[in-house]
Amino acid sequence: MAKKVILDLDTGIDDTLALVYAIASPELELIGVTGTYGNVLVDTGVRNALAVLEMFGRPDVPVFAGPTHASTKDSFEVTEVSAFIHGQNGVGEIEIPDAARRVEEKSAVDFLVESVREHGDELLIIPTGPSTTVAAAIEADPGFAENAHIIMMGGALVIPGNVSPVAEANVSQDPEATDLLFRHAKDVTMIGLDVTLQTLLTYAETATWRELGTVGGDFLADSTDYYIKTYETNSPHLGGCGLHDPLAVGVAVDPSLVGLLHTNLKVLTEGELRGRVMADETRLNDPEKTAHVALTVDVERFLGEFMERLTRAARQTATSELGSRSSAGV
Amino acid sequence: MAKKVILDLDTGIDDTLALVYAIASPELELIGVTGTYGNVLVDTGVRNALAVLEMFGRPDVPVFAGPTHASTKDSFEVTEVSAFIHGQNGVGEIEIPDAARRVEEKSAVDFLVESVREHGDELLIIPTGPSTTVAAAIEADPGFAENAHIIMMGGALVIPGNVSPVAEANVSQDPEATDLLFRHAKDVTMIGLDVTLQTLLTYAETATWRELGTVGGDFLADSTDYYIKTYETNSPHLGGCGLHDPLAVGVAVDPSLVGLLHTNLKVLTEGELRGRVMADETRLNDPEKTAHVALTVDVERFLGEFMERLTRAARQTATSELGSRSSAGV
Repeated sequence: MAKKVILDLDTGIDDTLALVYAIASPELELIGVTGTYGNVLVDTGVRNALAVLEMFGRPDVPVFAGPTHASTKDSFEVTEVSAFIHGQNGVGEIEIPDAARRVEEKSAVDFLVESVREHGDELLIIPTGPSTTVAAAIEADPGFAENAHIIMMGGALVIPGNVSPVAEANVSQDPEATDLLFRHAKDVTMIGLDVTLQTLLTYAETATWRELGTVGGDFLADSTDYYIKTYETNSPHLGGCGLHDPLAVGVAVDPSLVGLLHTNLKVLTEGELRGRVMADETRLNDPEKTAHVALTVDVERFLGEFMERLTRAARQTATSELGSRSSAGV
Repeated sequence: MAKKVILDLDTGIDDTLALVYAIASPELELIGVTGTYGNVLVDTGVRNALAVLEMFGRPDVPVFAGPTHASTKDSFEVTEVSAFIHGQNGVGEIEIPDAARRVEEKSAVDFLVESVREHGDELLIIPTGPSTTVAAAIEADPGFAENAHIIMMGGALVIPGNVSPVAEANVSQDPEATDLLFRHAKDVTMIGLDVTLQTLLTYAETATWRELGTVGGDFLADSTDYYIKTYETNSPHLGGCGLHDPLAVGVAVDPSLVGLLHTNLKVLTEGELRGRVMADETRLNDPEKTAHVALTVDVERFLGEFMERLTRAARQTATSELGSRSSAGV
């Protein structure tokens, strides 16, 4: 039986890749998407998620909007760095049509709380943005932290952060929320930069999507190329772009892709160390370990799974204009 | 055949426990001790190492003095915290007689360099203090970093430090030296607070040493009780004292005691983050991994090995005054 999943996305280029990964995985049943802020504003992310779902043949999946900013702040604006990496529109300035479907009226928090109540151990929640919405669900329902199973993309435990020497982007948006999550949730798998900067995609892979001659192939290739290009500027030592959010979905499909450290986590929230994820030394010897941090990853196997699934999904989308022309020429 | 080892100690209460562990392990052949600063001044540490070697029947082991301070500094003074934890004399204010043997004239750096040249892969170096002496050996001989096999106690990769929110005591004494070590040495196993704060000793264990009625048993029990008492003040959440330095020796005897993350390390040396050990993100995807960081430890098996070996060694020392009186009474 397929595992039910909810993706909590700030869609975002790599969020898009994660969403298509989930759609293309028969092991997962995507019951909904919740939209958060981060790479983009909530409205932009929700719009992108709906558009990508329609493009990839899943207009049946509902999308719910979450809080628009951290609870410790009054508002949120997209940082220059985020706009540089994902484009102003969140998908690398590639234009894709709006979906026919609208955002749900129910809030993301209510949807998360109700889904955990209804599905319990049959459900995985995969947040790939700030922890704001999940933290709000924890505060909204005393049973949520106890019963939710969470695989999050965020944090950096052993390597430096990507927005400060210590902080990763998602955690840095709302460190208090991630700290709350780590201190209360009973089952959190952390897929952080420690592993996602090992899973790199290059132009060689995106070229195979473009060759499909489909709308989905063109979109994945063009938006991901935009993303790879920003890595050439920001992280030239890597030689590709990090597949951050897709790896969290990959682990939901197949946990054996990563090696985990079982521990208890916290987030530092003060001063220069704000946003730093660390093991909680006061719970170091607690026999209960609520966090499972990925520190190693089978890069080759994951990249194989990723390309196989996304290419299959992109092949099934409509023929692109370019593709039509090619066909017409035959 | 026993593995040759050199211990580089700032002797220190847990250094003493590490030294006795090495003496009591037939798998190891202790070919020398080098003395560094840290818990104590070099002179104090050398004196303590010689005294403990004599007490435990190994006056044949030579002891060499290393640099008295970090190369980036002009001098070294024992911190108040170190004096509190190890006592002014380094062994919990317990008085033990000076050894007959004197410190060698050869320097610790020369001894390390010559030993690696002579023994190569048959030798393990176990530094349990600042990295100053080992870094000096790396700078003294171009072949040292390539050929030395090092199991160091120091650093904290996933949990906070013990002298600052980020820095562990040994690394904090000379972060530049540890950084040099991590960047150049081809084989460094790091036994840090991540694991050593999981291996805790309590008064229940030291009581078994005191019951032996031997000079060595009394000394181990009394000095370790002093050490445990400081943990009640500084780290009451732990419920015991960390067996930092002995675990490094334990891993030299049996590497399967710990689970290792294979990576490449660096030390941050600037600002508030000075002394922080991290994985080097610029070498994250380098297939060569020069560092092996212990993140999990088989606590029960290590404590069993530790107690069995130290108790055996302590039993073989001279009968104590208290022990004599007990015997006389029978």
